[in-house]
Amino acid sequence: MTTQENPQKGFFLTIEGIEGVGKSTALKFIQDYLTQANKNFIVTREPGGTPIAEQIRQVLLTPNSAETMIPETELLLMFACRVQHIHQVILPALAAGKWVVSDRYSDASFAYQGGGRGIDVSRIEMLEKWLLQDLRPDLTLLLDAPAQIGLERAKHRGPQDRIEQEKMAFFERVRRGYLDRMQQDKKRFRLIDATQPLENVRTTLKRILDAINQQ
Amino acid sequence: MTTQENPQKGFFLTIEGIEGVGKSTALKFIQDYLTQANKNFIVTREPGGTPIAEQIRQVLLTPNSAETMIPETELLLMFACRVQHIHQVILPALAAGKWVVSDRYSDASFAYQGGGRGIDVSRIEMLEKWLLQDLRPDLTLLLDAPAQIGLERAKHRGPQDRIEQEKMAFFERVRRGYLDRMQQDKKRFRLIDATQPLENVRTTLKRILDAINQQ
Repeated sequence: MTTQENPQKGFFLTIEGIEGVGKSTALKFIQDYLTQANKNFIVTREPGGTPIAEQIRQVLLTPNSAETMIPETELLLMFACRVQHIHQVILPALAAGKWVVSDRYSDASFAYQGGGRGIDVSRIEMLEKWLLQDLRPDLTLLLDAPAQIGLERAKHRGPQDRIEQEKMAFFERVRRGYLDRMQQDKKRFRLIDATQPLENVRTTLKRILDAINQQ
Repeated sequence: MTTQENPQKGFFLTIEGIEGVGKSTALKFIQDYLTQANKNFIVTREPGGTPIAEQIRQVLLTPNSAETMIPETELLLMFACRVQHIHQVILPALAAGKWVVSDRYSDASFAYQGGGRGIDVSRIEMLEKWLLQDLRPDLTLLLDAPAQIGLERAKHRGPQDRIEQEKMAFFERVRRGYLDRMQQDKKRFRLIDATQPLENVRTTLKRILDAINQQ
């Protein structure tokens, strides 16, 4: 399903990282870059990306004071969104030769539900193997910063969703979950130090995109 | 978690069957029986049974003309509901010594997503083993009738939900899914012929409930 196997097809790029590391700014930069390079692309996000998946996103992210969401419920809802997103959006776009740029994908489940919630990684691997089959990103940009820095930046954004309301220790475990996940698949990841000045992050992004573009 | 293991705890009774086989009437009869017998009980349903699970139920059952729900998405949403329902409702009630009467439980996933949608039963068993652990019903009443009879009865009920809108062949596969599932765990199931006159069904239900009550 990936361009490694089908060089004539699209390119699947994902952006990962905890709150406040600058994913939105990076996405905007990538979008501008691809527009200027005259690429055919779509930008999408998880959880969400289709009408049904956006409905599930609401269930996932709406704070609910009356009831605690069980970690396994959260994991299953994330994969329910993902399956819908893959079949309705990602696969058709890649098959049409487009770039697909997704704000988060399955690495986020390893980080958030694995690292953050403590669900055994082997369970997440089992879901991934069954439901995603061969569809892995061609490249994943991991924007990394200590949770304290991310949360400090994110707190000026207005109302927080259910997951954003978690505490610092949770986001440190999520960050660690991302870094552990990267160790399993180093070739696919580009680690970007998100504590750098924005200009340096942009230079790094440009270098990475130029390299893909020249392939 | 079941009363077989903890005889002093509650009793977990589930009712299964396709549309129109009389589950609601049977539930009402059971509720009246348990009230008269002075039992401490709750009646609940799947998908649903908690505020979060009811939100997921909406996503599952609302007809959506713009997008087809992928079978695996449906299965994951069902189990997301179920996990929430088990931890928030079923386990606490059983631990408190109550009867739990549930309108559908995991057998419905074998019937609807397995038989109906064609998802490999081994996938459903994997989810069940992981997420339900030892929690199986003490007894399951399977109300059985040919799909044609069930649908004929159900069609007078007003607007149909997304799953009820399926065609006859789908419900015949669901019925077959239930019967196949029963073969795997005969001791737990009581098969009730739902084509009988209502009075006979009631007599059968009473005999079953009397037997449990006298244990």
